[in-house]
Amino acid sequence: MCELLGMSANVPTDICFSFSGLIKRGGETGVHKDGWGIAFYEGKGYRSFHDPIASVDSEVAKFIKNYSIKSTQVICHIRKANRGRVSLENTHPFSRELWGQIWSFAHNGQLKGIKQKHLISYQPVGSTDSEHAFCWVLDQLREEFPTKPTSKAKLRQAIERLFRELACLGVFNVLMSDSDKLYTYCSTKLSWLTRKAPFERARLLDADVSIDFEKETSNDDVVTVIATEPLTSNERWTKMVNGEFSQFRLGNREFSNCG
Amino acid sequence: MCELLGMSANVPTDICFSFSGLIKRGGETGVHKDGWGIAFYEGKGYRSFHDPIASVDSEVAKFIKNYSIKSTQVICHIRKANRGRVSLENTHPFSRELWGQIWSFAHNGQLKGIKQKHLISYQPVGSTDSEHAFCWVLDQLREEFPTKPTSKAKLRQAIERLFRELACLGVFNVLMSDSDKLYTYCSTKLSWLTRKAPFERARLLDADVSIDFEKETSNDDVVTVIATEPLTSNERWTKMVNGEFSQFRLGNREFSNCG
Repeated sequence: MCELLGMSANVPTDICFSFSGLIKRGGETGVHKDGWGIAFYEGKGYRSFHDPIASVDSEVAKFIKNYSIKSTQVICHIRKANRGRVSLENTHPFSRELWGQIWSFAHNGQLKGIKQKHLISYQPVGSTDSEHAFCWVLDQLREEFPTKPTSKAKLRQAIERLFRELACLGVFNVLMSDSDKLYTYCSTKLSWLTRKAPFERARLLDADVSIDFEKETSNDDVVTVIATEPLTSNERWTKMVNGEFSQFRLGNREFSNCG
Repeated sequence: MCELLGMSANVPTDICFSFSGLIKRGGETGVHKDGWGIAFYEGKGYRSFHDPIASVDSEVAKFIKNYSIKSTQVICHIRKANRGRVSLENTHPFSRELWGQIWSFAHNGQLKGIKQKHLISYQPVGSTDSEHAFCWVLDQLREEFPTKPTSKAKLRQAIERLFRELACLGVFNVLMSDSDKLYTYCSTKLSWLTRKAPFERARLLDADVSIDFEKETSNDDVVTVIATEPLTSNERWTKMVNGEFSQFRLGNREFSNCG
């Protein structure tokens, strides 16, 4: 199994603190040593950093931990390989363009029979279940909406329906972004936390590090962090229930449905 | 105008030396200060690093210069914005998936009327001529070959034809890779150089740095470097002629046609 970390914020925010905790699980406090990746949205722009080695040993991870990239949406994944060998092309988050937006996807779990789902426009580069599932989701969206739908509700409903169909195939904890929104599905484990004023000190579970968010933020900031397991010891994380689909935007949970 | 750098090698090779010279042109010895990007292929895997600021000031560029990523194909671009504002989404190389391969593209020049070319499956995220041209090339390839063509010659001929069509619209110096091959077109300026045994010392034009490749390589290594302007002062670069299309693979120039 893998670990996921996502962020949605109303102002460009760095994820250095949460990332510092997560990467410890990539070979030190956790067994997820088969590569890692992180994707940042900056407006419509997208950049990602991947390394097919353990995050605790990764020079790229050390760089990201210390170099503050400010973003309104982040998706991060550290990998424990189950299906698909350890290699760069099997490292999440995966990304593809649809309707002139970069979509990205990171997944925890295995999906039995996923590769029998026929693909049309998008083909996987690597051999993971996850990338196949992502290509299928985008294929289905493209079939249903050849151009970007004007109804945000219709798009969200379509994504929720596709996620629920995938969840029937096994374990499907997922973070997906279309550069505007962050969509999540909790199959077995996903927790979230919104930080806003009054900000307090937070302490990592995986490292002896704490941060006083009051000093780092302004009063209008709203930042939601989503992770397979809570990352801090002294904050109140909300555990999603099995079957819960959510949509986050600009730091807020805009929609949630428990199925 | 922008600067381009490409590499094709028969063994995973780092590009630190050439990159050190190129990034000096991003705001120091050159005026290309509007962002930069570099893409590495590692087998089928692909990772890229982008920064929308001058490469001489970029922490990401410093990291790449010092951290040896070994790759058989590299495409790098430093930008002087002409069309499209300075932003992450307008930073080359652009990438898209076609037939389960990641294609990447970096361009020097402007293409008059390119945005009138109708796009089907691929849409630009940013606003540059270059990304529109890249989307159009992949669209045309996908239309002609819904699945990957078995004939490598047919694919190459199709790419050459599309490149020549684009070159009619303006200045089109370009590097494009499909993860297996590196395709180039010289509209006004592109030079190349193959390094193989016996290796010699090379000296950068843009920085007081030299390297003794004999110490860094093995006798079987073949490495070709392609750039808009030669990067070293004491090696024999071949200037491509205007209208020259080439295909490189595993360090060798496999094909060239001057049109």
